[in-house]
Amino acid sequence: MNFADRLAAAIEGKRSHVVVGLDPDYASLPAEIQSRTGPQPDVADMAGAYQDFLEGLLQDLSEVAVAVKIQVAFFEALGAVGYQLYLGLVARARALGYVVIADAKRGDIGNTSEAYAKAHLDVAGADAMTVNAYFGSDGMEPFLRRAREEGKGLFVLVKTSNPGSQELQDLVLADGRPVYRAMASLVEGWGVAARGESGLSAVGAVVGGTHPAQARELRAALPSTPFLIPGYGSQGATAGDMVGLFGPEGVSAVVNSARAILYAYKKRPLPWREAARREAEEMRDALWQVARRGGAV
Amino acid sequence: MNFADRLAAAIEGKRSHVVVGLDPDYASLPAEIQSRTGPQPDVADMAGAYQDFLEGLLQDLSEVAVAVKIQVAFFEALGAVGYQLYLGLVARARALGYVVIADAKRGDIGNTSEAYAKAHLDVAGADAMTVNAYFGSDGMEPFLRRAREEGKGLFVLVKTSNPGSQELQDLVLADGRPVYRAMASLVEGWGVAARGESGLSAVGAVVGGTHPAQARELRAALPSTPFLIPGYGSQGATAGDMVGLFGPEGVSAVVNSARAILYAYKKRPLPWREAARREAEEMRDALWQVARRGGAV
Repeated sequence: MNFADRLAAAIEGKRSHVVVGLDPDYASLPAEIQSRTGPQPDVADMAGAYQDFLEGLLQDLSEVAVAVKIQVAFFEALGAVGYQLYLGLVARARALGYVVIADAKRGDIGNTSEAYAKAHLDVAGADAMTVNAYFGSDGMEPFLRRAREEGKGLFVLVKTSNPGSQELQDLVLADGRPVYRAMASLVEGWGVAARGESGLSAVGAVVGGTHPAQARELRAALPSTPFLIPGYGSQGATAGDMVGLFGPEGVSAVVNSARAILYAYKKRPLPWREAARREAEEMRDALWQVARRGGAV
Repeated sequence: MNFADRLAAAIEGKRSHVVVGLDPDYASLPAEIQSRTGPQPDVADMAGAYQDFLEGLLQDLSEVAVAVKIQVAFFEALGAVGYQLYLGLVARARALGYVVIADAKRGDIGNTSEAYAKAHLDVAGADAMTVNAYFGSDGMEPFLRRAREEGKGLFVLVKTSNPGSQELQDLVLADGRPVYRAMASLVEGWGVAARGESGLSAVGAVVGGTHPAQARELRAALPSTPFLIPGYGSQGATAGDMVGLFGPEGVSAVVNSARAILYAYKKRPLPWREAARREAEEMRDALWQVARRGGAV
């Protein structure tokens, strides 16, 4: 089944556009989790702590969040034990009914991209992954083939959420377009052969929620491209910034929040699991209102 | 010690600009290595075969190659056992006196780039890594800090070796520069604070050897930036394409070849280790002649 159709069905089934970003940071873990390790935790201790923490969140958020986005970097930083934990998390999250996005931001020449696509979409078994397309079409082909033929999804970096994104992405081309619009055109083109019954493509785009005007411009330019929108919560984007981004059916975007959900216990007088659930529920409800205003959901 | 100075000293010490790309591919391994596994190798068997193969190459090429470039993708594709092998290879190659470049092409927002820098430069312990700077300065800072302060090196994607690189990288900006020149300017700027006694910076650039005119244009524009040049050998670039890229001292570039060295036994009637060594020696000698013509080595 085409990934875009699967994602749309999941959004409608859970009435949620929330993607929980799994960005574990040992220093931010609740004291209850940290206290299970000794005062000088090694990488195996830290991986065990991540496991306990993320298992709790996955159990409690499965009705609230449509997807999880696993930030591979934080697992790589623990070495092989961390990489093993990443692989286990993909399987566990899929078993709990989440759409699983490997946030790997990989991209290389063709034969190397084939190895990356294999690593994250085949071996790890993620439903979708994030991709950096600086290399162009031949570097993208191994990812695109899996989107066209194997029901996998991609989210290609177009306009990222960080302030420095303007340095390259906003440079203006001779034809008047900024660079990110040229990247967007490539993405829309790659997506044509990967459209599902919904009309949406399995080739999506990463569009930062911290740049609402540019995000709406991209929404208009890319009607068939699902958006993965980072920047909600701790990076500053709000539900109001998402107005107009969900498309006529309300299923053209999902929104990621990581730290604001994971470490919600720091701002709410609640146990950490309950704090995370409450934060995710409020985000879900706020986004649902915005998505309904945009169309027919 | 600044990475650029360390790399220059290694080039002069070994009289070599050769970087061996460690891109293991099970189907291409010599029969002698493949025969040690059963007919249906699992990932542990494949990792063992990679280990045997790469250990042989590392032993035989340590006098010929100044550096190895480990293509992380091919290890990720074997899962956690592959990731463990990658970590072991970095340590082994460093112990044998190679400069070790983790070819990871990572890049993300700041706190995530911090995790990637930690994973490859701190935990794995590579001397340098390849980076994708589509995110801009704030996403680069964790990598740049290690180049300025910790003797680590970076090679930022500027103009890649693949045909599709023109689709985004060659687009012309309103000021007349192609996108890759804008990326080059960012790289040169980031490198100013990371220059060594040689005048070269620890912030280098990936510049494909398959585009010689553009590579020479970049050489002129970036006098302080070391180049990592992929595309030699199986991608088609020759020593002649490298004329003018090594700088006045002959130490401003290193050149990567992967498949043409690793699988040289397919084209030479020699045992695989000897075939690889012969291929690397011929590459070394050809590049040394070219680098001398460019300057004072």
